[in-house]
Amino acid sequence: MKIAVAGYGGLGKAVCKAAEKCKDVELYAVFSRRDKKILNYKENVSVYPFYEAEKHAQKVDVLINCMGSAYDLPKTTPFLAGFFNQVDSFDTHAKIQSHFERTDKRAKEGKKLTLICAGWDPGLFSLARLYLGCAIPEGTDYTFWGEGVSRGHTNAIRQIPGVVDAVQYTVPISSVVKSVRAGEMPKLKECEMHKRVCYVVPEVGADTRRIAEEIKHMPEYFSDYDTTVNFIDYESFLVDHSRERHGGSVIRCDGKSLGEFSLKLSSNTAFTADVLLSFARAVYKMSKSGETGCITPFDVKPRDLFALGDDERMKRL
Amino acid sequence: MKIAVAGYGGLGKAVCKAAEKCKDVELYAVFSRRDKKILNYKENVSVYPFYEAEKHAQKVDVLINCMGSAYDLPKTTPFLAGFFNQVDSFDTHAKIQSHFERTDKRAKEGKKLTLICAGWDPGLFSLARLYLGCAIPEGTDYTFWGEGVSRGHTNAIRQIPGVVDAVQYTVPISSVVKSVRAGEMPKLKECEMHKRVCYVVPEVGADTRRIAEEIKHMPEYFSDYDTTVNFIDYESFLVDHSRERHGGSVIRCDGKSLGEFSLKLSSNTAFTADVLLSFARAVYKMSKSGETGCITPFDVKPRDLFALGDDERMKRL
Repeated sequence: MKIAVAGYGGLGKAVCKAAEKCKDVELYAVFSRRDKKILNYKENVSVYPFYEAEKHAQKVDVLINCMGSAYDLPKTTPFLAGFFNQVDSFDTHAKIQSHFERTDKRAKEGKKLTLICAGWDPGLFSLARLYLGCAIPEGTDYTFWGEGVSRGHTNAIRQIPGVVDAVQYTVPISSVVKSVRAGEMPKLKECEMHKRVCYVVPEVGADTRRIAEEIKHMPEYFSDYDTTVNFIDYESFLVDHSRERHGGSVIRCDGKSLGEFSLKLSSNTAFTADVLLSFARAVYKMSKSGETGCITPFDVKPRDLFALGDDERMKRL
Repeated sequence: MKIAVAGYGGLGKAVCKAAEKCKDVELYAVFSRRDKKILNYKENVSVYPFYEAEKHAQKVDVLINCMGSAYDLPKTTPFLAGFFNQVDSFDTHAKIQSHFERTDKRAKEGKKLTLICAGWDPGLFSLARLYLGCAIPEGTDYTFWGEGVSRGHTNAIRQIPGVVDAVQYTVPISSVVKSVRAGEMPKLKECEMHKRVCYVVPEVGADTRRIAEEIKHMPEYFSDYDTTVNFIDYESFLVDHSRERHGGSVIRCDGKSLGEFSLKLSSNTAFTADVLLSFARAVYKMSKSGETGCITPFDVKPRDLFALGDDERMKRL
């Protein structure tokens, strides 16, 4: 399978690195919007300008779109879907339906196949909800995210005047996790399941009390949550808060039986890269058998994600 | 979807009960080898002799084969595969390949579709190993079974002279589970991960010391394990050991990241019935689009397991 990578940020680099370990994958090129000269790219990786990607379409089996979910993917995924078989890790839950529809239209026009939402949530957690729904049909789903960084909340804090930099951790409330795991089936809003812990680097002389109040009262993001704001200096920030750990749990329970799928990831980026490559494998196989349009992880036969042969898969798994 | 149930033991009854709750499922009939008169069947369920099942093939969309995995399914699944679309919960790991091949041949001859191994392991645990393999490609899998009854080990104890009845619980060793969950990646044999706890009802006057020694030294089944044998009277046995709880965990770890899928089931039988019905739904859809032969859960698109429509599935999961 010949892949190309669109976007050479953290995720794009992680996909290139993960691809090196896969015997069945060859990296054809990276497409980037940044100047080739300023990219810290490896000697043996070809880099082409993003606006020329279309020219290379015939040489690529699957393009892995590694751009940002908030602003880039809503534009670039449907655009590229017309020329390439493609995989992305779109993760804005509320906008999946419209992202799907716009991508589906373009992919069908171009007779190509794009899979969206290959990540942990949406992605493997969505699959866990589906399979646990088969096992425990009349249950209730609980999803805990974290402990890990929420990019959306982190960016919201960075917009506040007087803030140099910041990070926000979403932390499941341990007594709630315990109650859910014990099968007690509490009725909960999301804000009762998680707390928010913020580390903020203030400008010299900034009014930290005002910043803390602005954070804690920010509607939608913080006002309903148990929110802690810690002020720290920039050096400590760089040392202690460049971590990439993330994870979470999907738990389904009907009061008698309980199922759980959980992940503790040392690097969210490396994990997403591996998942994107697995789904790229499936898109490659499915496109060869003539499928076109937009699909999600729900549409993929598990066997198509795996490089193993039939016999080995059956024996080992 | 019109289903039929072959075998009217605990699992067959559980499937009939679970089907009543599914709006998209209608129970056509039960096929049983036992005399209709001695069956404790419900008024509104049609029961036909097993040897006449073939006659009804045109009226059934999917047959759910609820017979025993050890002795019945190896014969009846391939036999019925020639006439019916079918699902079974075959669970003898070492014999899956031959069960697959014999069923595949018959199903292809009859132009029908059979799915085997719809249960927890093999079944959902196999799927968990596959998906976790995508997320953590260079990891090691650990599987813990229990706490729950092992039928194979229970039957082995029942063969010993002087034993009236018995039950054997497979119990994960908690310090080992803790070490694996902590990401310590211990190197372990299966016998170092589980202990075996037996409850035995001895005949009056039987030599309980001899029975205990026979159990503890039984090769393959017990001799490598930490085995505890408890002797109890028949009344306590019936009260305390008719439980149906089971479960377990699949854990995959590479020393940095860790993923886990676990189930705690109040009734293994009711759970298997629900899973069989979900996979029957998929077999129904796949057979309508012309697929034939033998498949496993690896071959099923997750979307086909679920009764929900496309929009609701995307929104909810």
